[in-house]
Amino acid sequence: MFPLDQLRTLLAVVDEGTFDAAAAVLHVTPSAVSQRVKALEQGTGRVLLLRTKPARLTESGQVVVRLARQLAQLDRDARVELGMAHSGEPATLPIAVNADSLATWFLPVLTGVPAELRICFELHREDQDHTTTLLREGLVMAAVTSSPDPVQGCSVSPLGGMRYLPVASPGFVARWLDRPLRKAVGEVPVVVFDRHDDLQDRFARALTRGRDAGPLRHLVPSSEGFVDAVVAGLGWGLVPAAQAAPRLESGTLVLLDPRRAIDVPLYWQQWKLDSPALAATAAAVAEAAKEALDRR
Amino acid sequence: MFPLDQLRTLLAVVDEGTFDAAAAVLHVTPSAVSQRVKALEQGTGRVLLLRTKPARLTESGQVVVRLARQLAQLDRDARVELGMAHSGEPATLPIAVNADSLATWFLPVLTGVPAELRICFELHREDQDHTTTLLREGLVMAAVTSSPDPVQGCSVSPLGGMRYLPVASPGFVARWLDRPLRKAVGEVPVVVFDRHDDLQDRFARALTRGRDAGPLRHLVPSSEGFVDAVVAGLGWGLVPAAQAAPRLESGTLVLLDPRRAIDVPLYWQQWKLDSPALAATAAAVAEAAKEALDRR
Repeated sequence: MFPLDQLRTLLAVVDEGTFDAAAAVLHVTPSAVSQRVKALEQGTGRVLLLRTKPARLTESGQVVVRLARQLAQLDRDARVELGMAHSGEPATLPIAVNADSLATWFLPVLTGVPAELRICFELHREDQDHTTTLLREGLVMAAVTSSPDPVQGCSVSPLGGMRYLPVASPGFVARWLDRPLRKAVGEVPVVVFDRHDDLQDRFARALTRGRDAGPLRHLVPSSEGFVDAVVAGLGWGLVPAAQAAPRLESGTLVLLDPRRAIDVPLYWQQWKLDSPALAATAAAVAEAAKEALDRR
Repeated sequence: MFPLDQLRTLLAVVDEGTFDAAAAVLHVTPSAVSQRVKALEQGTGRVLLLRTKPARLTESGQVVVRLARQLAQLDRDARVELGMAHSGEPATLPIAVNADSLATWFLPVLTGVPAELRICFELHREDQDHTTTLLREGLVMAAVTSSPDPVQGCSVSPLGGMRYLPVASPGFVARWLDRPLRKAVGEVPVVVFDRHDDLQDRFARALTRGRDAGPLRHLVPSSEGFVDAVVAGLGWGLVPAAQAAPRLESGTLVLLDPRRAIDVPLYWQQWKLDSPALAATAAAVAEAAKEALDRR
């Protein structure tokens, strides 16, 4: 077994980013932090941390950090079962969630987990396909992700599909769409989440057999900001059905194609770990997803 | 003068992340991309790019990329003035904006810029104090930031203060706050944006003369998700006044301390560049900020 204080120190460096910040959190000197990390590296016979700013894990470091987090979680779980929860730290559950889920259906999860488990949620906004990196590096214990490929040591279960509808504001339609979107696409402005968002291009290609959404694109990397930009008439775009519905009803958005939508399948990936906190969260996620996502 | 095709190639590699992706965008072979970057490095006598994935700029590379973007912007501006805009690419204006501004007052900026300038906004969500890096590396031409220190080659102007109010849900108050927040802080759950968000801790320290907001913290890194989490009763938190006001009125949020708020001063930083597109955007930002932010 690796000494717990060394593992805890490595975790603190990774979480806080620097030896100095880790020292502040642990209430020890930076040189003590440095010594413990060095001792852990001697014990494992591997370099675990690149001394960059912020410090970065080597591949061996990732393995050790994952172990450290699993040990910490099991330790906390045991304390809760023993009724010792209040004597220890609250359980922190780091989870990666994609931006649109965070803005739409994910929130009930946070209130759906029994309060007596004393879980603190540490949500990370998924940076696209970055989630698997976060899981592999041990920075999160679970993730809502669009990737069905399990990260090593993780289990995967499907949550259902998130439906996106092609919409625009009535003003945008009046100004730009005197012909069907199928003909106009590529020449009219479009709103896109960020450089990695290919939903609009996929939709355009399906509509036109090959052309993408064109060069007139605004990038608005915020889920609510994206909808607001479409409502303001900056461009057309694909909006999650949950966000589009009330605006279609009130007439601030118009559906551009009633027969086409894009369904993005979502998955829950989590470490294979027998932890009540993680199990309760997974159950709450499945419950919320059942309400909000399409299952077929 | 550096050859424009070489500068454009360097930009494409930085924007797309890899030589292969740059080649696809430029419709040339990856080896042509590699040759042009090498030629530019020979011409400048410096290594400009680290061949990592994604490729990273050296300090010299940052200088050259900034130059390349400025040249591209001036070129586009001249085309627009000459009435040639439609023959060329639309002008892309990369801007970094902090998450709370993006979710509250920033949107009118996008519709406030004259359409004939044909500007495509490429917004980057500021990752905390990361904005200055984005400016320095030439990835954005302007930024809404909390830092008053100008990046080299940039001008800074104050936009006003964004006011944050300490709030919680009525249910949270009933369950956790049988005594004043001043006494309870540190022992009751709090919602925090991410690891870098120190607003709640600053507020707690001001209230208690030194104690921070405590270990029971949920991290919710989405501006709307943050408000929703506070409304759902997950914890208390500091919410932008614009987002808090309607919820205080409807009673879904309660103000925890009518005499204390936190004002975060915001600044506009932009490259010193005589560009009509940039000037029009700066004017729209100043206008929107005047409406939405506190000036004193």
